[in-house]
Formats: sequence, structure tokens, C-alpha cells
Amino acid sequence: MHASPLTYRRQIETILLGWGARIEAAAATAEILLYAGISGIDSHGISMLTEYDSRRRNGWLDLKAKPRVISETPASVLIDGGGGLGHWPGSLAMGEAIARAKSVGLAAASVRNSAHFGACGYYTKMAAEAGLIGIATTSAMMIRVAPTFGAEAKLGTDPFSFAAPGEEGKPFLLDMATTTVAFGKVRNKRNENLPCPPGWVLDSAGRPSTDPADVAERGGFLTPLGGSAENASYKGYGLAAMVNILSACLAGAMPITDPARATRPGGPEIGHFFLALDPKLFRDPAEFRADVAAFCDSLRATRPLDPATPVLVAGDPERAAAERRAKEGIPIPPGLAARLQEIAREVDVPWLL
Amino acid sequence: MHASPLTYRRQIETILLGWGARIEAAAATAEILLYAGISGIDSHGISMLTEYDSRRRNGWLDLKAKPRVISETPASVLIDGGGGLGHWPGSLAMGEAIARAKSVGLAAASVRNSAHFGACGYYTKMAAEAGLIGIATTSAMMIRVAPTFGAEAKLGTDPFSFAAPGEEGKPFLLDMATTTVAFGKVRNKRNENLPCPPGWVLDSAGRPSTDPADVAERGGFLTPLGGSAENASYKGYGLAAMVNILSACLAGAMPITDPARATRPGGPEIGHFFLALDPKLFRDPAEFRADVAAFCDSLRATRPLDPATPVLVAGDPERAAAERRAKEGIPIPPGLAARLQEIAREVDVPWLL
Repeated sequence: MHASPLTYRRQIETILLGWGARIEAAAATAEILLYAGISGIDSHGISMLTEYDSRRRNGWLDLKAKPRVISETPASVLIDGGGGLGHWPGSLAMGEAIARAKSVGLAAASVRNSAHFGACGYYTKMAAEAGLIGIATTSAMMIRVAPTFGAEAKLGTDPFSFAAPGEEGKPFLLDMATTTVAFGKVRNKRNENLPCPPGWVLDSAGRPSTDPADVAERGGFLTPLGGSAENASYKGYGLAAMVNILSACLAGAMPITDPARATRPGGPEIGHFFLALDPKLFRDPAEFRADVAAFCDSLRATRPLDPATPVLVAGDPERAAAERRAKEGIPIPPGLAARLQEIAREVDVPWLL
Repeated sequence: MHASPLTYRRQIETILLGWGARIEAAAATAEILLYAGISGIDSHGISMLTEYDSRRRNGWLDLKAKPRVISETPASVLIDGGGGLGHWPGSLAMGEAIARAKSVGLAAASVRNSAHFGACGYYTKMAAEAGLIGIATTSAMMIRVAPTFGAEAKLGTDPFSFAAPGEEGKPFLLDMATTTVAFGKVRNKRNENLPCPPGWVLDSAGRPSTDPADVAERGGFLTPLGGSAENASYKGYGLAAMVNILSACLAGAMPITDPARATRPGGPEIGHFFLALDPKLFRDPAEFRADVAAFCDSLRATRPLDPATPVLVAGDPERAAAERRAKEGIPIPPGLAARLQEIAREVDVPWLL
């Protein structure tokens, strides 16, 4: 099944409204899940509704929550997400960072008491579309990653995104988990009965493994980017720790390592961090954009190992997917469609897909 | 041979002064190379003098250069390094970012027309010691890294550093090249006639290799962090591109991919980027530091795979080295000592080591 972007968005919105979400929360969440869906980031698209549904049933998601500004300065804003989904407070926070950066040159925004906010890249793209450099990070829900030399999960996939405006409509847009791969890729190998490449996973004793079942079923771990100490996984581990310091410690959200997190009544509390910087602080913005565009074009022009696989720049794969999916629609696999149909029926909202 | 920190620093300073460097340039460079030397980052310590010597002889280093502020706002400063070494303008720039962040909450500084500035971590440590979060990046001199899917070098080791204050004297301090490993590690394997682990290097056609000679002698490449497309080297590649956008494009320094760079009379031009953020924008700074300290301690307490190899936090290895070397002195291998002695003799400055 393929859904048009409009229908995809509308279906998300109706289900959220059916759950009793505020209009602003439903609109922001639908827009940000649509960004992921159309960009080919299917792990962060409409499939997230199944996750949100179980959190909602656990009492871990207050759909009536309204983000509230706790404090602000000309260069910053701190928002309390009120225990609702992260998309609304997240987009408010990045919007404030952008507006303040336009005025004072650079600004930061922080969100505490929040939850999943979708794909990080949505927020940095907001900044790039406003002509600014953007950074976004978030702390994670699930603990799945062992630090280098460790045999115990202490971190999440802890994503980081950076964007910069370049050629019109083609920002540089890096959006990455700080693990070698996301859990979904390990689950896919498991489903296909294929081994993982060396470097993706560790068994529950912290030893390198290629068996996806070690992570999926036997308490093993994902590796930080790098994959092994020999291949510098302390860099991915360090980046993951940085993401937690920016997202949780700075916002005053509960750190992922806090043992009290597991028993917190509202579920694990998530924090987000956003930064926007106006290149005009240092240069004529048009010259900056021209240099970024030329730099990206030079990277794309790199002689490839295999002419069938050209060198890309961060943001290119998502743009290619978006172009394709705007025409062909966004694919929704049958299992997911059935589950979403069930969710829609349960709250008696129309099935649009 | 082991040098006391004071002698190590003094020897660097006398040689730089012997080359005709300004007093401020000699002092800043000596301090920052000493930071690397005492912290165990030997690739960025006194050994750099041999590199600086050849650049100086090429006419690529103006030791009389004086950094000059080109533009400023309450939240930013742009400095022209004047074609000299990067340590003086770099430490001035981070100093300005810190002072401005103390006043307006966060600030950025940028340096163009600069050269090698030592270890990135020195600058973010400055921020952490002032109670602030710090970020530092620099563009690189040498092009050694092929983008993912590429068979041509387009990027450098492109380092990134992030620091945050936590427990007093123990900041979180990440300082990393965005490659899997630095070229020095490949050279060491070559010298020992050992293969590289899979994922470190590519041959000159862009194919995975384990032969260090492929890079050291036959035009091959270092890999971005991740090591292969399958193991997400597009993340390391994306981080390297980010470092270039921040360091070169934002400062108005010549991008590493610019073909004119090779024939520029002053040699490849380097740019740096610095950011400082005061946690008081969002929280009581003491509470922030306590959370960072607790987070780091929880990571250190991770059950290890091997009890003899405990889990560390970014900054721990450098602090352990500094503690050891403050007592035992900083080791200087005989070949390097001989080369340095020759350099000192050439400009007729006393040999102190």
C-alpha cells in the first residue's frame, strides 16, 4: 500500500485527535512524522504511532500536555514539555532558537519533561531553511548500547543532527544515531536469518558477535559508532555521552543512567537540545551558502569506487526519497497497515489510507 | 629521554623565538603543545616543531603574524590569523567566546587565514575550566580521507572536540579525529610490519585494505569513522563535512576541496570554529555540573567485559597520562630528540632537554 503525503499526514492527525491530543500536538506530530515518512526514514514515520499507542496505554504520554516556557533570555529558551510528545515542544523550541538567532546571532533552546520528538533532522532542516546553521540532539527512551569496554547497556541510540544552508533547497543535513546501526537493522537481519557484519553488535557478556539474536533476544548490546575499541568506538561512545549531556543534563531532564528513571510514574523523561547560528555573524550569508554548495558539489564529484554508486552528501538520500515518494506515495507494509487500521478502529476514527 | 613539563615548554618557546616568532605566539604555542605532551597526545606535542619547521622553510608560516579582529558582536568575534600558527589566534578566539558567553549566555568565534592550532581539546578544556560547555573544530592541512563510496581523497582528519564541566578538575572532554584512526597509527603498523585491522584503510582504488603501505606509500586513504559503508562510515564522513563547514566555510577560509588551495602562495589556509555556552542559561550551574559528574560516574561504573580494562569517560585517559607525566616527565623518543637538537642548533638556541 502507498499513501499520498496528504493522506499519510491526515491519518496520523486523526488518530492523534482520536486519542484526545490537543490540535497543536496532533498537527506538529503529523507534520514531523510525515517528514520522516516522505524522506524514507520509515523507522520514524507513521510506524511510531504503534509505539506512541503503547506508551499512551502505559500512562507514559499525556496527550493533553501543553508546552510551557520556564525561562528565557534574548539568546535562549527553556521549555517544559509537560510529559507529552516531543514534536510540539521541539518545534516550538527550534522556532524560538531560530527567531532569537536572527536577532542576536546565535541562540539555544532546551526542552525537559518531554518524550519522542521524531527525526532530529526535521529540526535542523527548519534552521537551514531559515538560512541558519542548526544543531539538534535528544536523549533516548531505550537503553541498548554498551560503552566501549563495557558489558552493560548504559546509553541509547542518542542521535545528533547538524544542518547548514547551501544550494537553495539542498541543505547539508546530517542526521545520525551515534551507534553503528539502529536496532531496526539488527531486527531485519534476525528476521531474514542473516548474520550481522562484524562490529554491529555485542553479546550479553560484551563480546563481539555477529548473531542478531544476541541483541534481539539474549540481552546483548548495540555498539557505539566505530564498532570496536580497535576501530575507535570510544568516539561513537563519546558522541553519545555528549548528546546526553546536551539533551538531558543541560535541560534538567533525568539522565539516561539515573536508576530512578525506570520507576518514574510518567515513564522515562526525555530532553532535547537545539542550537541555531546565523552565518552573518562571520560572513555575507550568500557567500557562506555558495561555499557550502561548492564544497558539497566537490564531495559529490569524488571519483567513486563503483560508478553505479556515486558519492553522496548528507541530506541527498532523504531528498531523493522525498522526490520519489511525492510522486509514488509513501509505502506502508501490510503488517503495519493492519496494525494502524486496528488502532484507528479502536478510537473510532476514519480509515483513510 | 624524559623532559619535565617546564623544560619541555621552555624548549618549545626558545626554538620558536629562535625562528623569530612573536613572544605571544611562542608562549601560546608552547603552552598548547605542552598540553598535548603532558596529556599523552604525542602526535600534537613537541614533535609538531619538526612539521612547523618545514612549513616555515616553505614560506607557509609567517611567524611575525599578529592576529587581528575583523568583526565582532556581543556574541561573536571573527579573527584573521595573518598566516601564522593557529595557537595564538585560536586561544584568543576561544577566550573571547568564553568572555562573551559569560555575558550573553552563548557565543561563537571563528578564525580564518590560520594554520595548525594543536590539539582541539585544549580549547574546549578552556571553556570547561570556565564552567562552560565548549565546542572546537578546525579544518585540516592534509587531504587523506576518501568520502564513503569514494576512491579519491577529499577530506582531512577533521577533528571535533566537545567539553562540559562536571566534577571539579574532571571535565567531560571529547577530542576526536573524525577518521577511524589518525595517520600516525597506520604509520606505526607499517613500521612494525603489521597489518591494519579491517576498516582502517582503503587502497588507492577505494577498496578495503589491511596493508598499511597502501596508505603510507601507494596513494590509498584513511576511512571516515565507521570504516565501511556497511558499518556506517557515512556518519564519520558527515561529521568530517560538518567540521569543514564550521571551520572553513563559516570563517571564510578556503575549503579543503578548493583546487586553488594547493597553489596558494601562503600554503593551505586553515580555519577554526569555537563555541561556548553557559549552562546557567537553562539551570543552576552547580546542578548541571552535579548531573554531568553523576552521569560520568555511572558510565565509569559500567560492568566491564574484562575487569583489567575498566570503562572510561572522554578525558580520563588524558588526565591519567598528565598525572603520570607530571611525575615521570614527558617521554621524547631518541629519533625525535636528535631532530629537535638539530633544529635548536640551526637557530643557535640552547638545548634544554
